[in-house]
Amino acid sequence: MTVMQRFKITIEYDGRPFVGWQMQKNGPSVQHALTEAIAAFTNEDVLVQGAGRTDAGVHATGQVAHVEIEKPMAAHQVQGALNHHLKPHPISALKVEAVEDSFHARFSATGRAYRYRIINRRAPLSFDKGLAWHVARPLDAQAMHEAAQYLVGRHDFTTFRHVACQAKSPVKTLDLLMVERQGEEIIVHVAARSFLHHQVRSMVGTLELVGAGKWAPQQVQEALLAQDRRALGFNAPPDGLYLSRVRYDTPSMPRDKTTVG
Amino acid sequence: MTVMQRFKITIEYDGRPFVGWQMQKNGPSVQHALTEAIAAFTNEDVLVQGAGRTDAGVHATGQVAHVEIEKPMAAHQVQGALNHHLKPHPISALKVEAVEDSFHARFSATGRAYRYRIINRRAPLSFDKGLAWHVARPLDAQAMHEAAQYLVGRHDFTTFRHVACQAKSPVKTLDLLMVERQGEEIIVHVAARSFLHHQVRSMVGTLELVGAGKWAPQQVQEALLAQDRRALGFNAPPDGLYLSRVRYDTPSMPRDKTTVG
Repeated sequence: MTVMQRFKITIEYDGRPFVGWQMQKNGPSVQHALTEAIAAFTNEDVLVQGAGRTDAGVHATGQVAHVEIEKPMAAHQVQGALNHHLKPHPISALKVEAVEDSFHARFSATGRAYRYRIINRRAPLSFDKGLAWHVARPLDAQAMHEAAQYLVGRHDFTTFRHVACQAKSPVKTLDLLMVERQGEEIIVHVAARSFLHHQVRSMVGTLELVGAGKWAPQQVQEALLAQDRRALGFNAPPDGLYLSRVRYDTPSMPRDKTTVG
Repeated sequence: MTVMQRFKITIEYDGRPFVGWQMQKNGPSVQHALTEAIAAFTNEDVLVQGAGRTDAGVHATGQVAHVEIEKPMAAHQVQGALNHHLKPHPISALKVEAVEDSFHARFSATGRAYRYRIINRRAPLSFDKGLAWHVARPLDAQAMHEAAQYLVGRHDFTTFRHVACQAKSPVKTLDLLMVERQGEEIIVHVAARSFLHHQVRSMVGTLELVGAGKWAPQQVQEALLAQDRRALGFNAPPDGLYLSRVRYDTPSMPRDKTTVG
């Protein structure tokens, strides 16, 4: 009998060098880097499943994945070995927990939160190149926040959906969309159970038009009600987007099954 | 008659790819990148003088330099052209001001402030690799702050001085040394008229020992009073150090002389 232990892994990564979360033929992915790192200390063919498939250039400070390992190891040993083998990549395992087999990073998730960073200044970026959206024209964060409130709640988000989005329904419930300024930085906080493909970037791109005074806040509501992709303002670049938290209602299993195996 | 206009330039840079501020034969420097960028739009041989000579791998969010240009240009034109030609480098001109010929970035400076970033967590860094000091063992920021207060004021800082330091006197007045925790980050705020070579990194390295409980706060005072480099705890790496502000008591000239030329 083969005893497998499932682990929940909370991950941070700089998305700049990657084609995205998901394994693809055209370049390095976060999922592939994790798979290789785990294979390096287990000699096992593992399947690393993530809560959210971040696009190319999108970052994470709280992505969650799960994986099953045959080799008997405690959670802290997995974290140490994983981080050791991840050294060549800008990926870090923040937390590793042993979980029940019923835990699934994607399907057990009951909420996802994103942060979108805009740096609003005339001077180009140095530290934050690729880590934030550089907007040179002055933005009114208060107007952006007001416009954002039209999007909160249960709506048909067809306007803010990528043409290739595979979700069955365009109806989603947006729990939070908050815009705040901290000095030269504007941060957009977003939370929902799940999102349509490109929804966050579409919403932020549209809010930027409001911040710049090109759109009145009410136009965001009109675009939403149009339920038409052509009513969309603009897609914000991946640079500023961070998957910051994934919520699970079932708590992770505290005890460590590997001591049994 | 040649009319030269002097400009004060406030600069941000990621120090990772550079051998430091100062031009050297062994690799790319910030000073050289600026000199080349200015030459590209003026066709002039210019001397860019900085307020502080940051070491290899040290960053700046508020370095100040001055330069004299013959080509008649307004300050905002200099900023635009400079940032355009700096594109290949992680350097950004935040502000450019026309100043009187008496202004000297280094000799007119009456104060310098640094920030030192420590990320205190078990997981390795992803975004902040080279941009902060990663300390895995738990640190008590409050104990570090208390110990830091022994260093504030006018003292002989021989203990915290690099052996190659060229300053005439080891006596300096430290105006501020404040340690604060913000989540997993510990920030050390430092300000003085001027510093000895490696003084900030020496002080932070010693405070880390206090934070880890290896040194009692009073031992920092004993090390200071020893006036002996061998009494030093440890030098913090360049990664976490940022030159954040340079102070001048004479305000920059508001009008733009280039309109006269």
